Amino acid sequence: MIMRFTHKASALAVVLFAAILLSFWMSVDYRTVDLRSQPGSTLKKLFDQRVQLLQESYSEIPFRIKESVLGMLFPRVSAKVFHTAFQASELEEVKRRRAEEYQSFKKRSQSAADFIIVAEANSPLQYPTQGVKVQPKKTILIPGLGLKEQPKKLHSVNLTSTLGIFDVAAEVEMVKVEGVGEKHITLSSNFLPHLNRQLQFVTYTNTHFHPNTADTVEFCTEGYTAVFTIKIRHSLIPKLYNPGSGRGYKISKLVTIATKTFLRYDKLQVLIDSIRQFYPTVTIVIADDSEHPKPVTGPYIEHYIMPFGKGWFAGRNLAVSQVTTKYVLWVDDDFIFTSDTKIEKFVDVLEKTTLDLVGGAVREVTGYTATFRHTISVEPGDEDGDCLHIRRGFHHGIQGFPNCVVSDAVINFFMARTDKIQQVGFDPQLVRIAHLEFFIDALGVLHVGSCNDVIVSHTSKIKLPWGQSETDKAYAKFREPSTTTQVAQDRLFYFKNRLQCLTYK
Amino acid sequence: MIMRFTHKASALAVVLFAAILLSFWMSVDYRTVDLRSQPGSTLKKLFDQRVQLLQESYSEIPFRIKESVLGMLFPRVSAKVFHTAFQASELEEVKRRRAEEYQSFKKRSQSAADFIIVAEANSPLQYPTQGVKVQPKKTILIPGLGLKEQPKKLHSVNLTSTLGIFDVAAEVEMVKVEGVGEKHITLSSNFLPHLNRQLQFVTYTNTHFHPNTADTVEFCTEGYTAVFTIKIRHSLIPKLYNPGSGRGYKISKLVTIATKTFLRYDKLQVLIDSIRQFYPTVTIVIADDSEHPKPVTGPYIEHYIMPFGKGWFAGRNLAVSQVTTKYVLWVDDDFIFTSDTKIEKFVDVLEKTTLDLVGGAVREVTGYTATFRHTISVEPGDEDGDCLHIRRGFHHGIQGFPNCVVSDAVINFFMARTDKIQQVGFDPQLVRIAHLEFFIDALGVLHVGSCNDVIVSHTSKIKLPWGQSETDKAYAKFREPSTTTQVAQDRLFYFKNRLQCLTYK
Repeated sequence: MIMRFTHKASALAVVLFAAILLSFWMSVDYRTVDLRSQPGSTLKKLFDQRVQLLQESYSEIPFRIKESVLGMLFPRVSAKVFHTAFQASELEEVKRRRAEEYQSFKKRSQSAADFIIVAEANSPLQYPTQGVKVQPKKTILIPGLGLKEQPKKLHSVNLTSTLGIFDVAAEVEMVKVEGVGEKHITLSSNFLPHLNRQLQFVTYTNTHFHPNTADTVEFCTEGYTAVFTIKIRHSLIPKLYNPGSGRGYKISKLVTIATKTFLRYDKLQVLIDSIRQFYPTVTIVIADDSEHPKPVTGPYIEHYIMPFGKGWFAGRNLAVSQVTTKYVLWVDDDFIFTSDTKIEKFVDVLEKTTLDLVGGAVREVTGYTATFRHTISVEPGDEDGDCLHIRRGFHHGIQGFPNCVVSDAVINFFMARTDKIQQVGFDPQLVRIAHLEFFIDALGVLHVGSCNDVIVSHTSKIKLPWGQSETDKAYAKFREPSTTTQVAQDRLFYFKNRLQCLTYK
Repeated sequence: MIMRFTHKASALAVVLFAAILLSFWMSVDYRTVDLRSQPGSTLKKLFDQRVQLLQESYSEIPFRIKESVLGMLFPRVSAKVFHTAFQASELEEVKRRRAEEYQSFKKRSQSAADFIIVAEANSPLQYPTQGVKVQPKKTILIPGLGLKEQPKKLHSVNLTSTLGIFDVAAEVEMVKVEGVGEKHITLSSNFLPHLNRQLQFVTYTNTHFHPNTADTVEFCTEGYTAVFTIKIRHSLIPKLYNPGSGRGYKISKLVTIATKTFLRYDKLQVLIDSIRQFYPTVTIVIADDSEHPKPVTGPYIEHYIMPFGKGWFAGRNLAVSQVTTKYVLWVDDDFIFTSDTKIEKFVDVLEKTTLDLVGGAVREVTGYTATFRHTISVEPGDEDGDCLHIRRGFHHGIQGFPNCVVSDAVINFFMARTDKIQQVGFDPQLVRIAHLEFFIDALGVLHVGSCNDVIVSHTSKIKLPWGQSETDKAYAKFREPSTTTQVAQDRLFYFKNRLQCLTYK
């Protein structure tokens, strides 16, 4: 996509771009790879520069800003900030290390498939702009290549790649092909239909192994260049669970109940007894970091002893790591199952929708029932980090499930797909009170919902964040980092999640 | 991208496509979403049909197949098959259930960002083909839109989406904009530069929440349609680990050693003592499913008691779930650290490259040292499943690390990024002997390497798969499913990973 700029800067950018691609093309050593950065990462800057040049064209034509839309592009809010969790003396060093870790993270997680590419207008080139993928070291036919121009003496196109080589799967008469088995191939013919027929048989073979990256291919003819991406990735092998034979939902085959306990064996036993009234053969996994662990026995009970006080999320991560059924139901050790706790409803939602996790409702001794539905969004920031916005509420209702909604976070009573919840995990660095941190780690990975018609009772007299009179008080913690726990959690938000601030409403 | 086909079938496809998009456009109820399938999934079939039509053009021009390349496109191998792990009587039912689970998996993991899209030649439309993304329910400026045609009375373009609405961030004189705030917007002007200036300010707002999907946008002018994708996804919040202050690698801050033990407390103690000679303060996490657990104590030791015989991979998953440092080093409980076991070298590789996991070498009592490097590839299959190909060897050397290579699987002595290994996990369904299954689950997720200059000694007299005389014997298990364990593992390959066969060389 080399635009006919008269701009000197853009001409320079084009030459530079071609030079870099040429250097990749000419280096044919497959014996070693340079893993100190993602393949093709040098090109990103060039792509960004070209998009910028496009946006700067027509600059002589004035415009009038629409404030309402501007507000949606650049929202402004006041927030709690996290850098205050660090001493002033250590903050510069912490910022520097965080930036280093973030650069390393980006190197590993971004690829040429993330660049903005703009298709040039009026180009005689036809080519695939999306969907071309190849497994590492494998070969594919490139779909959709073509040249559509007026008849002329010689029709010619060429392709250039950086992480693979080209060939043809079949040969068409009266077409000359040069560069077979190389990173640069030229195809030419006096007859356009023949060239187009030949273009249906161009193959790409990935030569530079990487389990998950992308190659940038330039497709050129005289005066025009198109750019497209070939994704290079190992097949993602599915993780399917066998639900067992027969009709209907066999809860004991589909669901494992998981919980963590600490010092509350009496409450734990009440929970287990209540579960057994309704689900006599469901496996219950218990992570226990009590100081003097007592046996917890019974059929279909799995009891895990942890080092004393190892922690809340460590215990959650442990319990969930042991589940072998398709779904896992999280409960706290002071819940009680009642006849309203029909977990088949959770299974029904997860079986029939694309949700990965569905929360229920917790009924306090007062009768107050909470679902703790929240939405979460991330406002991208500069090198100081992003800002997180958490709001009570939900996104949408769910068709076919009138008691259910879509949200980003729910209460601590939920059922989830085991493979997905294991993929996100509960960070064992969170030792004491933590809840929303899991859903923050889950953003973009889990599709979360909430149904208010699956209700579990809560026996504890300890006040929890979602108690009716407690919401504002509990989240005062987000505003005043007065305790050691809060400081530790703020430091984690700052470094681990690269957040500078959070707002909560 | 409506090509000027004279083909009736393609004309029909176009009308159908437009009709479906129109129906999405007209449904403006944001209160509920239908989660029974991925948004936009009906369009996939149409995209596939259009690519097919392109490939069938020029069919009158003959070609001659190149056998060598055909071989790379369609390789043929003989293999061990997995369906034999099921009784003939249950196989049909198992196949049916597996197909159901797979359909559900695809619904959740695919989106409009996976379709093949082909850019039409000679279109006056300029538009972004890659890289446009928006967070759920947020707004972006669409980059790169333009119309490049000869001056005429009226220049007009329109955009249509399914999961969002359009607006303009700024207004340009002498441009008419209709459909602001809707899924279909039309922009027109008598002056082409003014229309192009206005196109620099078109915004897209996602209205249909989904944590990870894509919208298909049609960008049209008279006679031409271009299609591009806007990815809709929550920001992926990073998981960065704080390596601590000061220069150099502080192993105790960066690394946790993890192992699983069963009945071998003497060997375990030898391992711990050998580690302590070189790394006195590194945390060692021990998962223990012995029948009569004994205490394992000492500073920086974390001992976890599991239900008796819970299993090998359950223990591995447990141990890894408890790690709070940036890296985790996996060791077997019968290894011994020596002066050759310099794990700083592992840290150096992981700090400086994009690798997620790096294996070392295990030295047997005989002196034989193994790295167990393998490559793995997946041959896509039909509804009977894919076929896995495992080969001894590696892909490439690694620049800057002459003792290291890139592969897909390594020996059971390795260091990995904690967040990545937790993301893949060790499937607790694997109770007894298992090793490569982890690397199969890791395909496309972990970037794996192997360095032969970090060596640990192995004390056990039990023969392991990578013993010099044992390789073929051990993998005879892949060929003859004679034991209960092997049958259970084959059933897992068949159902969980949807594999029909495996070859090993």
